[in-house]
Amino acid sequence: MNRTVSTLLSILCAATALSQTPREWEEKFRAIPKPANLREYMEKLSARPHHLGSPYDKENAEWILSKFREWGLDANIETFDVLFPTPKERAVELTSPTKFVARLQEPGLPEDPTSNQKNEQLPTYNAYSIDGDVTAPLVYVNYGIPDDYEKLERMGISVRGCIVIARYGVSWRGIKPKVAAEHGAVGCLIYSDPSGDGYSEGDVFPKGAYRPFDGVQRGSVMDMPLYPGDPLTPGVGATADAKRLSMKDVQVFTKIPVLPISYADAQPLLTALSGPVAPDEWRGTLPITYHVGPGDAKVHLTAKFNWDRKKIYDVVAKIPGSQFPDEWIVRGNHHDAWVNGAEDPISGQVALLEEARALGELLKQGWKPKRTIIYCAWDAEEQGLIGSTEWAETHADELTRKAVAYINSDGNGRGYLHVSGSHTLEKFVSDVARDINDPEKNISVWKRNQLLRILRATSADDRREIRSRSDMKIGALGSGSDYTVFIDHLGIASLNVGYGGEDGGGIYHSIYDDFYWYTHFSDTDFAYGRALAQTAGTAVMRLASAELLPFDFTNFSETVKKYLEELQKLAKSKQDDIWERNKQIEEGVFAATADPKEKSVAPPTEELPPYLNFAPLQNAIDELARSADRYDKAASIAKEKKSSSYKSVNTQLIQSERKLTHADGLPGRPWFKHQIYAPGFYTGYGVKTIPAVREAIEQKQWKLAEEQIAKVASVIEGEAALIDNASAELEKISR
Amino acid sequence: MNRTVSTLLSILCAATALSQTPREWEEKFRAIPKPANLREYMEKLSARPHHLGSPYDKENAEWILSKFREWGLDANIETFDVLFPTPKERAVELTSPTKFVARLQEPGLPEDPTSNQKNEQLPTYNAYSIDGDVTAPLVYVNYGIPDDYEKLERMGISVRGCIVIARYGVSWRGIKPKVAAEHGAVGCLIYSDPSGDGYSEGDVFPKGAYRPFDGVQRGSVMDMPLYPGDPLTPGVGATADAKRLSMKDVQVFTKIPVLPISYADAQPLLTALSGPVAPDEWRGTLPITYHVGPGDAKVHLTAKFNWDRKKIYDVVAKIPGSQFPDEWIVRGNHHDAWVNGAEDPISGQVALLEEARALGELLKQGWKPKRTIIYCAWDAEEQGLIGSTEWAETHADELTRKAVAYINSDGNGRGYLHVSGSHTLEKFVSDVARDINDPEKNISVWKRNQLLRILRATSADDRREIRSRSDMKIGALGSGSDYTVFIDHLGIASLNVGYGGEDGGGIYHSIYDDFYWYTHFSDTDFAYGRALAQTAGTAVMRLASAELLPFDFTNFSETVKKYLEELQKLAKSKQDDIWERNKQIEEGVFAATADPKEKSVAPPTEELPPYLNFAPLQNAIDELARSADRYDKAASIAKEKKSSSYKSVNTQLIQSERKLTHADGLPGRPWFKHQIYAPGFYTGYGVKTIPAVREAIEQKQWKLAEEQIAKVASVIEGEAALIDNASAELEKISR
Repeated sequence: MNRTVSTLLSILCAATALSQTPREWEEKFRAIPKPANLREYMEKLSARPHHLGSPYDKENAEWILSKFREWGLDANIETFDVLFPTPKERAVELTSPTKFVARLQEPGLPEDPTSNQKNEQLPTYNAYSIDGDVTAPLVYVNYGIPDDYEKLERMGISVRGCIVIARYGVSWRGIKPKVAAEHGAVGCLIYSDPSGDGYSEGDVFPKGAYRPFDGVQRGSVMDMPLYPGDPLTPGVGATADAKRLSMKDVQVFTKIPVLPISYADAQPLLTALSGPVAPDEWRGTLPITYHVGPGDAKVHLTAKFNWDRKKIYDVVAKIPGSQFPDEWIVRGNHHDAWVNGAEDPISGQVALLEEARALGELLKQGWKPKRTIIYCAWDAEEQGLIGSTEWAETHADELTRKAVAYINSDGNGRGYLHVSGSHTLEKFVSDVARDINDPEKNISVWKRNQLLRILRATSADDRREIRSRSDMKIGALGSGSDYTVFIDHLGIASLNVGYGGEDGGGIYHSIYDDFYWYTHFSDTDFAYGRALAQTAGTAVMRLASAELLPFDFTNFSETVKKYLEELQKLAKSKQDDIWERNKQIEEGVFAATADPKEKSVAPPTEELPPYLNFAPLQNAIDELARSADRYDKAASIAKEKKSSSYKSVNTQLIQSERKLTHADGLPGRPWFKHQIYAPGFYTGYGVKTIPAVREAIEQKQWKLAEEQIAKVASVIEGEAALIDNASAELEKISR
Repeated sequence: MNRTVSTLLSILCAATALSQTPREWEEKFRAIPKPANLREYMEKLSARPHHLGSPYDKENAEWILSKFREWGLDANIETFDVLFPTPKERAVELTSPTKFVARLQEPGLPEDPTSNQKNEQLPTYNAYSIDGDVTAPLVYVNYGIPDDYEKLERMGISVRGCIVIARYGVSWRGIKPKVAAEHGAVGCLIYSDPSGDGYSEGDVFPKGAYRPFDGVQRGSVMDMPLYPGDPLTPGVGATADAKRLSMKDVQVFTKIPVLPISYADAQPLLTALSGPVAPDEWRGTLPITYHVGPGDAKVHLTAKFNWDRKKIYDVVAKIPGSQFPDEWIVRGNHHDAWVNGAEDPISGQVALLEEARALGELLKQGWKPKRTIIYCAWDAEEQGLIGSTEWAETHADELTRKAVAYINSDGNGRGYLHVSGSHTLEKFVSDVARDINDPEKNISVWKRNQLLRILRATSADDRREIRSRSDMKIGALGSGSDYTVFIDHLGIASLNVGYGGEDGGGIYHSIYDDFYWYTHFSDTDFAYGRALAQTAGTAVMRLASAELLPFDFTNFSETVKKYLEELQKLAKSKQDDIWERNKQIEEGVFAATADPKEKSVAPPTEELPPYLNFAPLQNAIDELARSADRYDKAASIAKEKKSSSYKSVNTQLIQSERKLTHADGLPGRPWFKHQIYAPGFYTGYGVKTIPAVREAIEQKQWKLAEEQIAKVASVIEGEAALIDNASAELEKISR
């Protein structure tokens, strides 16, 4: 077309653009993502193994970069140098009473083309296990969490000097070798029991979606509850010239060698165990009698690694804000995988890409977000959230000043919307969910989520609350994906979003998590991939263009109050439990009920826990509730006035999550600054809310618990003060 | 010795005897039973298969008779002629998609001598299955209880025209074909999943105690909740000249052919199933994915029987009462087994025998029980409680007039005392339990039972009650052993006693329930066999010589009040559940949460249940409580007066359990007369308390429920009146 027409058209476009409301832009946006594109991206990105340090990992990063640029975004790759051990030697053998050599291999399948890319696949192993070569008696420790070891003590069994075999599940995998080592074990095997994600759950791959006999869950066993990211550079970006720890000073390696194995490999080992029959709830569904050991069963375990440094590639794309370029909305999903990773993480990554493409389209049509939007495709998540952590640590100062919120996704599937995150964004994300259509049911994903929660509720009270509450309840964030550094270390309000619940499977971290599997068993038509793009993209756009940032503190304060009630119950139940146990010891319950044909050890009596002074927290949370109410009212009035100069209020709001951190971090793990949410020191992924207090109570450190109550109370008072400042600003505007 | 010395000695003995208190006689008694004898009896009685109609069954009865007589008791054998089908043809085959022929055979083991007596062993089958030969698609129905079929309906699956395969457990086995037939199935297989009593529970026989791959649970599938005993002679003794039903009029046969199979035989059948994956709680621990079907899997099932009449042998021994010969204490345990039956029933039978020997000893020493004691070794329990039922039906008039109580035992093991029975005897049996020493712990079995219940209690309230209550709580009697006719049909106060909980195993009704198994894995030193003899024998002696019969009504009235509260809760929860389900249907919960990739059917809306008028029962139970209190006081005062003429009171007390029956019986099953306890129509062994009302509510028959409330109320009022009469007699005595 000639220049005049073109100029006219662009003027027309701009005019149309100006006349459109943010909600109209959002609707336009939601019409853009196409399942066919998602499928195409996935096929490309999962075509070859693309773990940290692999050629295809770099190729993918460069392809993503080219796409971002093709769509008109200002994109770059940031690289870091990080420690990444890969296997040099691996062996697991039963040496007595019979011989058995574990296969430690996942076979390729004729019908599944990418499963046969042997040369590029990482072997089955757990990253950041130390080097080791041990031969020792085997003991089965169930999930290998602290409670399991207490049970072992009651059975009179010690793992000291033994190799433990634990099953995957309940805790994050890194907890298993950590707790095993604390109890004196010298090695650790982790296997996938078929009761977890194998044949007991459904037909196994390739007939069905579940873990086949030789399928193995790879995974990191870095002690991430201490700090995630590159082990050599805690707290700072792993840039080329960063100051690095020497290997011997690193705290996050395991203390003992670890290897993951399949259930086919585990069965002969478990069969060889003697000793007591495993307690009821310890038994899986292998066709054997589960024994605990120890006995004749001896195992030889070798795990040795190349401790190399590798380059990682974070792809970062920016859309500059038109009004508030220094207020950032950050959106991320990792691109690296353990092997081909169609589900984890590509199913989420492709939604992020399609969002980026759609936003590029809108930009071309004249859309101008008020705030800066940053799209990130992280590398090296699988090894310890490394790509996101190093990037955020590198840009910590800027992020601390500018970041409004971080929105994360990871693997995605078919079914229901799941959201976890900062409760200051609970109302906001509920509103977003009301605007997203469920592709299977043609109702909003918010509604479908609500109806599911009604179905699953176990009490009439819960159902009443679900029915009457206009917001969906979101979970608190633990760890397990790239939001960790944002919320836990920097105090940036974060959300993690995804769909699932109707898909299931057992290919996690195996060679079978690939395009063939995903397109046969998960979100096969990418309808929920589109829904994820719509959900996260809508949230990004709405945050980017809100006049008044949509933070809300009433849901947050209600939630924190519930956490406090939980803590009080926990403290009470610790008292009650110890009182009861002491009483039972005294009245002879354990002596009378011990089966003389089985070894057992009565628990020791314990000192009764003191009452804790929760008053500082109670007062602070009351204050928080009052501040939240005041803000709620002030915001309603201000909104009616339709003011458009919320700059000073927003400046406060952006810092509201930061206020929930404490510079000292949590006891014993200073990297974790957030005082309301953290991954549990003994659960890993699983969240602990008000973690400093909760874990002190759980670990019976009463003095520490009281200190931490005061510390958290002061943090909450600070939050209340910030909210009051924001309210005062609003009240000024409304006057 | 010469006559003078002998006469002198006997005078001396008699004098000593007279000077001994009943408690001293009891102590003497408890010193007599010897583990070595129990072992010897067991070895003899379980030496060969001894099921109904077998040569060794008769031989055992004659041997027991000879022993009773040797010990000085007046013993006889009473015979009956009863219907007993044995297999003529049995076959289970998978005909598609692959071929598999079930073995239907338990192999003998070299180390276990009696397991090889092939010629005398009954094949694996379910007695009173009808003859049948069907080929049909297979459907897996979990435990095969009504709830499971509701779940199938939600999955859109019908069993009409299909053969169902159900696993053993949860309900009594006879319920499975009954419910299957109600839903249109044409055949039924019942298998022992290894999660029940196979390898998942412990090492399998002969390495351990649990069910081996080819082990099969035989058993009766007669519809005993309708009536037990000989199918041809309901309500009357199966004497030679009894009037018998014609075969076509018998209601208690199954409606479809049934066979039990091992898990080795079940695995290929279950593996062949397609259709939806079985719901979580339906899955066992075979190394397969459990599917529900139907699909290609077709099964051919043949079950044909010789419908013979066989003679059965009840051995009955009497010790006449010295003061009240027409007041009877009846004690029983069956002697017949499915195969060798060392555990079931010989472990209980040998305790009964040793009691009889000990009582014989005491008689020689001059002990004279006031009341008549009757020891019974029943035949044909396994097929449907036939020996006890026919005997009691034959002697119904006399029993109704004379029987004070019936004390039953069956298989016995190592561990804790278990008692179920009439709550009017709860105080009594608690007192007995306080006098029995636990052989492993040297505390009373009452104390050990209490400490176990403290350990197992799930709430502080429960623990408080257990600690403060001087009586142990006894369970209500359902069915499953020979007490049934006594309590449920004739209204004779009954107790069922036994030890167990530390033994476990999977040999129930298989060829492996034998002397080798029992002496390797159960009460191997017969210490708990002795404890059982001491417990039941003490109870018998104490009842036989009590001045005032030790019935108590306060525990009973408290218990009945609890049942009423349960019924009210049940009615309320039916209302709430239906209200909630209707609400969920209306708000679209089922539509929104149905996975479109799986077939599912939303439940239908239902009319809301009406409020029921519980007032008649509430009033009656209040009256009962007042009567019980009055009796309690009157008895305390009377006992202080040390009167010894309680004859008129005892006459009332003997009838107290009879008063709890109603001539019409339960709705639809008139044989069951007791209005407080009955086996559930859809649970089999499992008890339903206040069954007429409870089952009407469960089955949503609201009008029937109200009628039955009135009926039970009048029965309880009758009981209260009887107690008042007894109190009045006591008050007269005390005056």
